[in-house]
Amino acid sequence: MSDSKKSAEKLDGDCRVVISEVRPEIEAGQFAIKRTVGDHVEVEADIFTDGHDLIAAVLLYRKEGETDWSEVPMVPLVNDRWRGRFEVTGMGGYRYTVLAWVDHFKSWQHDLAKKHKAGQDLSVDLRDGARLVGAAARRAVQEGTLQLTASARALTEQDPSGLESRIALALSPQLAALMAANPDRQRSTRYVRELCITVDPELARFGAWYELFPRSLGKDGKHGTLDDVIDHLPRVAEMGFDVLYLPPIHPVGRAFRKGKNNNPECQPGEPGSPWAIGAIEGGHKSILPELGTLADFGRLVMRARELKIEIALDIAFQCAPDHPYVKAHPDWFRQRSDGSIQYAENPPKKYQDIYPFDFESGDWKAMWLELKSVFEFWHGQGVTVFRVDNPHTKAFPFWQWCITELKKKHPEMIFLSEAFTRPKVMYRLAKAGFTQSYNYFPWRNTKKELTEYLTELTRTEVSEFLRPNLWPNTPDILPLSLQYGGRPAFMSRLILAATLGASYGIYGPAYELCVNQSRAAGAEEYLDSEKYEIRSWNLNLPGNLTELIRRVNQIRRDNPALHRNDGLEFHPTDNDQIIAFSKSAEGSDNLILVVVNLDPHHVQSGWLTLPVEEWDIAPTGSYQVHDLLTDGRYLWNGARNFVQLDPAFAPAHVFRLRRRVCTEESFDYYL
Amino acid sequence: MSDSKKSAEKLDGDCRVVISEVRPEIEAGQFAIKRTVGDHVEVEADIFTDGHDLIAAVLLYRKEGETDWSEVPMVPLVNDRWRGRFEVTGMGGYRYTVLAWVDHFKSWQHDLAKKHKAGQDLSVDLRDGARLVGAAARRAVQEGTLQLTASARALTEQDPSGLESRIALALSPQLAALMAANPDRQRSTRYVRELCITVDPELARFGAWYELFPRSLGKDGKHGTLDDVIDHLPRVAEMGFDVLYLPPIHPVGRAFRKGKNNNPECQPGEPGSPWAIGAIEGGHKSILPELGTLADFGRLVMRARELKIEIALDIAFQCAPDHPYVKAHPDWFRQRSDGSIQYAENPPKKYQDIYPFDFESGDWKAMWLELKSVFEFWHGQGVTVFRVDNPHTKAFPFWQWCITELKKKHPEMIFLSEAFTRPKVMYRLAKAGFTQSYNYFPWRNTKKELTEYLTELTRTEVSEFLRPNLWPNTPDILPLSLQYGGRPAFMSRLILAATLGASYGIYGPAYELCVNQSRAAGAEEYLDSEKYEIRSWNLNLPGNLTELIRRVNQIRRDNPALHRNDGLEFHPTDNDQIIAFSKSAEGSDNLILVVVNLDPHHVQSGWLTLPVEEWDIAPTGSYQVHDLLTDGRYLWNGARNFVQLDPAFAPAHVFRLRRRVCTEESFDYYL
Repeated sequence: MSDSKKSAEKLDGDCRVVISEVRPEIEAGQFAIKRTVGDHVEVEADIFTDGHDLIAAVLLYRKEGETDWSEVPMVPLVNDRWRGRFEVTGMGGYRYTVLAWVDHFKSWQHDLAKKHKAGQDLSVDLRDGARLVGAAARRAVQEGTLQLTASARALTEQDPSGLESRIALALSPQLAALMAANPDRQRSTRYVRELCITVDPELARFGAWYELFPRSLGKDGKHGTLDDVIDHLPRVAEMGFDVLYLPPIHPVGRAFRKGKNNNPECQPGEPGSPWAIGAIEGGHKSILPELGTLADFGRLVMRARELKIEIALDIAFQCAPDHPYVKAHPDWFRQRSDGSIQYAENPPKKYQDIYPFDFESGDWKAMWLELKSVFEFWHGQGVTVFRVDNPHTKAFPFWQWCITELKKKHPEMIFLSEAFTRPKVMYRLAKAGFTQSYNYFPWRNTKKELTEYLTELTRTEVSEFLRPNLWPNTPDILPLSLQYGGRPAFMSRLILAATLGASYGIYGPAYELCVNQSRAAGAEEYLDSEKYEIRSWNLNLPGNLTELIRRVNQIRRDNPALHRNDGLEFHPTDNDQIIAFSKSAEGSDNLILVVVNLDPHHVQSGWLTLPVEEWDIAPTGSYQVHDLLTDGRYLWNGARNFVQLDPAFAPAHVFRLRRRVCTEESFDYYL
Repeated sequence: MSDSKKSAEKLDGDCRVVISEVRPEIEAGQFAIKRTVGDHVEVEADIFTDGHDLIAAVLLYRKEGETDWSEVPMVPLVNDRWRGRFEVTGMGGYRYTVLAWVDHFKSWQHDLAKKHKAGQDLSVDLRDGARLVGAAARRAVQEGTLQLTASARALTEQDPSGLESRIALALSPQLAALMAANPDRQRSTRYVRELCITVDPELARFGAWYELFPRSLGKDGKHGTLDDVIDHLPRVAEMGFDVLYLPPIHPVGRAFRKGKNNNPECQPGEPGSPWAIGAIEGGHKSILPELGTLADFGRLVMRARELKIEIALDIAFQCAPDHPYVKAHPDWFRQRSDGSIQYAENPPKKYQDIYPFDFESGDWKAMWLELKSVFEFWHGQGVTVFRVDNPHTKAFPFWQWCITELKKKHPEMIFLSEAFTRPKVMYRLAKAGFTQSYNYFPWRNTKKELTEYLTELTRTEVSEFLRPNLWPNTPDILPLSLQYGGRPAFMSRLILAATLGASYGIYGPAYELCVNQSRAAGAEEYLDSEKYEIRSWNLNLPGNLTELIRRVNQIRRDNPALHRNDGLEFHPTDNDQIIAFSKSAEGSDNLILVVVNLDPHHVQSGWLTLPVEEWDIAPTGSYQVHDLLTDGRYLWNGARNFVQLDPAFAPAHVFRLRRRVCTEESFDYYL
C-alpha cells in the first residue's frame, strides 16, 4: 500500500464538518475552567462544513466518573459561530466537548422549499426525502419508528392529486422535529479535545473573609488562645463574615526567631513570626501549645460552623530551622557546601529563620506526598478552606498535582493563592488549580486603574480560571492609599472591595480601627506588626467601622447581583474622582449601582451616564434609586443623573435600582 | 501504591520551568505556519519559573526528516515573554519547539554580585559556585573541561589574600560564557507541542499572475491552441508576469453544454465552459484536442520557463455528465432515487452540465487517491503551480491530506485556493494547506475597507497561514468599482493590487483593455464572458494599460520592499479619497511609499503624515521621493507633505524614498 493510501486509511475522511476555536478553552485544554454549583457553562465554537449543506451541532457534557454524556443543542449565531449552554449541578470535575454533523434532512427541506417556490417539479425530490425519512425510521425507537415509516410512505404516494399535501408534509415542522430527534450521526465530527470544568462550592465564588491573629485576642495581655477565638466568633458573625482566616497556628521556631518589627535580635518572651513554622513541639500538623489543642481547634470549627462561618487555615510550606522535617528529611532542603542548609534569602536580605523546601530534591515524590498530607490532616479536623502562603515560591507541577489529587476526594476544598507576584505567575497558579487569588487590588486606586483591572479580571478569559479575592489590606500590606487617606479611605476601599468583588476580605481589627501607621515613610508595612508581636485592640474605639462593615455585608447577602462578578459593568462619569459601576444577576431583577468618591479629602460631585435602556427603563423614564447604606431614596430620570459625595460622611452610594415605579395603569381598577 | 503516588510517578515533577503561549501556533499546533526559503521564523513564549531563580531558554528547530535539532538562544523581553529566531534555508517541512531550564549558575552569579555589593561574607558562596562549575566541567567536552576544572579549583583557593580575584573570576563574563556553553539541562522543561512550518519556494510569496483563455488566442477567428499560447508568451514576459495561469484545458462535456452568456440552450459549434470537464476524449488528465496535445503542452511549459514564467493550471474537481469517471465510478457521485446522478444546484438554480463529487461516497479513499493523482499527472508534465477551483465545495479532510501528501514529495508545489466564501471557511482552507488564497480584495475599495482588510491579512495571526493573492478582476468577477470607474479605476486597482500584495494577478486581456461591460445592471459578471465563448481581443486598442502594467511589474521586481507583505504600514491622510501606505524590507534600505487617489472621477489632494523618525529621517529633515511610475522627483520635508493626484493622468504615486541626501559633510575633502 502506498504511503498516501496508508495516511488516508487513518482518517475519518468522510466526516466533513469542522469544529474549532471552542471557548472557553484554557491553553488548548491543558487547564480546567472554574464554575460553582448551579452555574451555567456557555460554550461557543466555529462550526461549518464544505459546500452548502446545513449542519447540526450539540454540546456534550458529563460529570467526571460518569460514562454517559448529556447533550444540549447548539444554535448558530453569526459568522459560523455556534453556542450552547448547560448547568453544572454538582461539585467536582466535569467535561465538555462538541459534536456536529451534516444534516441531510434539514438541507433537503431547505432546498425543497426554494424549489417549490420556484415551481419546479418535485417528484424525484420527494422520493429522495422519503429515503432520508425511511433511514431515520430504521434508526428510531418506539413510536418514532411508526410515525417516520408512515411519513416516508406518504412522501412517495403516487397519487398526483395528493402532491400539495405531500409537499406540506415534507416542509412541516412536525416532520422536522421528528427527524431532528433521530439524527444521522454516522459521519459526525467530534471536537479534538475534551475540556474540563472544576465545579466548586458557592463559597468559592461568594464570601466575605476576616483575618485575625488569635494570639492577640488574649485578655489582660495574655497570649490569646483558640478559646478566645471561640469567644470572638459572635462578633465576626455579627459583622457578617463567612470565613474566618487564621495565620499559621503551628509551633513557632526558636532558632533565629524574629523580634518586634522584624528585629533579627529577638528578646526573651517574644512570640516570633507564626510563619516561621516548626519547633520541638511539632510542625505543620501541630498546634502551638499556647493556642491550645487539637480538641480546642475542633470545638472552634464546630462553633464557627454553627454561626455559618468557615475557619480557613494558612498553609505556608516552609520550615523554621528547628522544624522536625529538617532533621528527618535533610534532603528536602538545599545543602550548602559547608554542610549547612540554605535559608531563604533575597540578596542582600537574609531570612535565617526560614528554610524553603527544595523542589529539585531527589526525594521530591516523598516530599510531595507529605506536603499534601498536611492538607489532608487539617481537612480531617474539619477545615475545607485554605489560604496558601507564597505558592509562587514552590514548583508549579506540585500545586497542579496536589490540588487535583485533593479535590478528587474533597471537591469542597477551597484554596486561596497568596501570590503577590508577576501577572503570568499569578495566572499560572490559578490555572494550576487555586480556587481564588489575591491580586493587585491593593495597588489599584484610581478610576482608570480600577476600571481596567476589574475589566481584565471579570470580562476576559482570565475570569474563566482566576477568581479574585479583593483585600484592601493584609498583615503584609498597608497601602499608601490607606496610610494617607485615613478613615474615608478605609470606608471607600472597603465598599469597593465588597461590591467590586463577590469575594473580599479584610485583616482586622487593624481595618475596622483604621490603623494606618507604617513602619517607615514610603513603606507599605504596618508599624508594630502583629506578625512579630502580640497586639491588644480596643474594639470600641470611636470612629471604628464595625457598623459600616456589618451593613455592607448585609447588603451583600441580600442582593444576588453582588454574589458574582460576571454582571459587573462600569459607567461613565464626568469626574475622574467618581467611579460608578453596576452589578446585575442573570435571572433576577436585582440591580445594584455603586458610586464611590475616590478622593478621601474633598466633596466631589458629577454626572453619571447610565445604560437605562439596557435596564428596561425608557430613555426619559423615571425610577427610584434606594441607597442601601443610608436608606435614602431618590427619584432619577433617564440616563444622566447628578451625585455629590462627602467622604467624611459617606464616600459612596450603594443603590438598589427599583425599576417598577407604579403608575395609575397598575392600579387594580384602572381597566 | 496510592493513586496520588501513582499520579506523581508519571510526572517530571522537578522540572520547574513553565513554557506557554508559544507564538506562532495555529489552533494548538494543528496546522503549520507558512514561510518561504530564506525567511526568518520569530518565536515568542511565556517562560518563567517559581521563586527568584534565573532561567535560560533555547528555541529548537529541525527540518522534517532530520533527527538532530538545531538551537538558538531565546532572550527575555518584558513581562516573562521570551523571543528567539532562526532562518529556514530549504523547502519542505520544519518543526520548532522551546526548551527552558533553571540556570543555577546564572542565579548564583546574580546573587553573588548583590551580596558582594552589600559586603557580605562570600566564602561559602564561592564554594557553592565551585560545585556548580565542577559539575559543568564533568559535562563539558575538550578544552571546556580543562578551563572549567581550573576555574572550580580557583574559586575554592584557601588563600584569603586572593579573595578579590576569586570574586572577580566568579563574576567574570568569561566564566559565564563557559558555563552557558555547558548548561545543566537535567531538569529542563520542553514545550508540550512541536509546531510545524511549511517552507515554500519564493514564488509562493512574491509573484505577478496573468490569466488568459488559450482558445481566444486563435488567429482569424479560429479556436486558439497551445501553440498560440507559446506565441503569446513573449508579450506576457514583456509585461513582467511570473505566472501564466490557464483555465481548465481538458475536454469539455457535451451533455447540457452551456451557450453564450450562460445560455442553457447551446448552439451547434459553441465551445462550452472549460469548467464542464470531461468528455469521450478524456477527463482531468487529458487535453481538449482543439487546444493540442500533451507534447504541445510540454513545449509550452519549457518555453515559458525559458522566459522565467511558470504555467499554472486550473484544477476543478467536478465532472461533466460525459466525463469518463461518471461511467467508471458512479459511486463517486450522489445517486438520486430515480437512478440519476445529482447535478450541481443552488436552488432554484440548476447546473445540469456539472456533477459534483460526493465526499461522503463509501469509496472515498479510492476517489481521494485518484483526485490526488491528477496533480501528480500534471506535475509530471512540468506544472508546479495550481489554481484550485472552488475548494470550499470539497471536504476539508481531503485537502489537508492531499496537499500534505503532495508537498511531502514535491515541496515546490503551489496551490492557490479560489474560495470566495465566508471568512472562516476561507481561512480553514489556508490552514489545511493551500499556499495562497483569493480573497475579498475585489470588494474592498474605500480607504477604510482597504486599511482594515489588509491589516487583518498582514498584521494578525492570519498572516501566519494565509497568503493573499490580490486580483482586481477574474473571469467570474467584474467588480462594480471597475464597471463605473472606467480606465482610472483599472489603473488604480492594478497599482493597489500590485503594491499592497506581494502576489497579485489580473485576468487579461480584459483587464489591460479596460473591459467594463457587465451582463446586467448590478451584476458583477462580464457581458459575453469568455467562460462561454471564444473572444478575439484587439491588444493594441488605444488607452490600453499594457505599458503601465509593464512598468508596475518592473518596479515590483526592482524593489525588495514589494516582495513581501510583512513590511506593510498605512499612513494617515486628511482626505478619505487618498490612501497612503509604505512597504519596507528587513535588512534592506529599500522603502516604497504608495499614494493612491481612490476617486476615479476627480482630482484629489491632501496632506500625508509619515512616520519619518521610524525611517531615520529627522523630524524636520529633507529627503527625496522618487516617483517610479513617472520618474518625477520631489524634495519633501519632515512628516507632513502635500500630494495632488489627477485620476485621468496618473491616479497614484509609487515613490521610492531616498533618505541619504548628500550634504557638504559627505564631500570627500570636508574634513
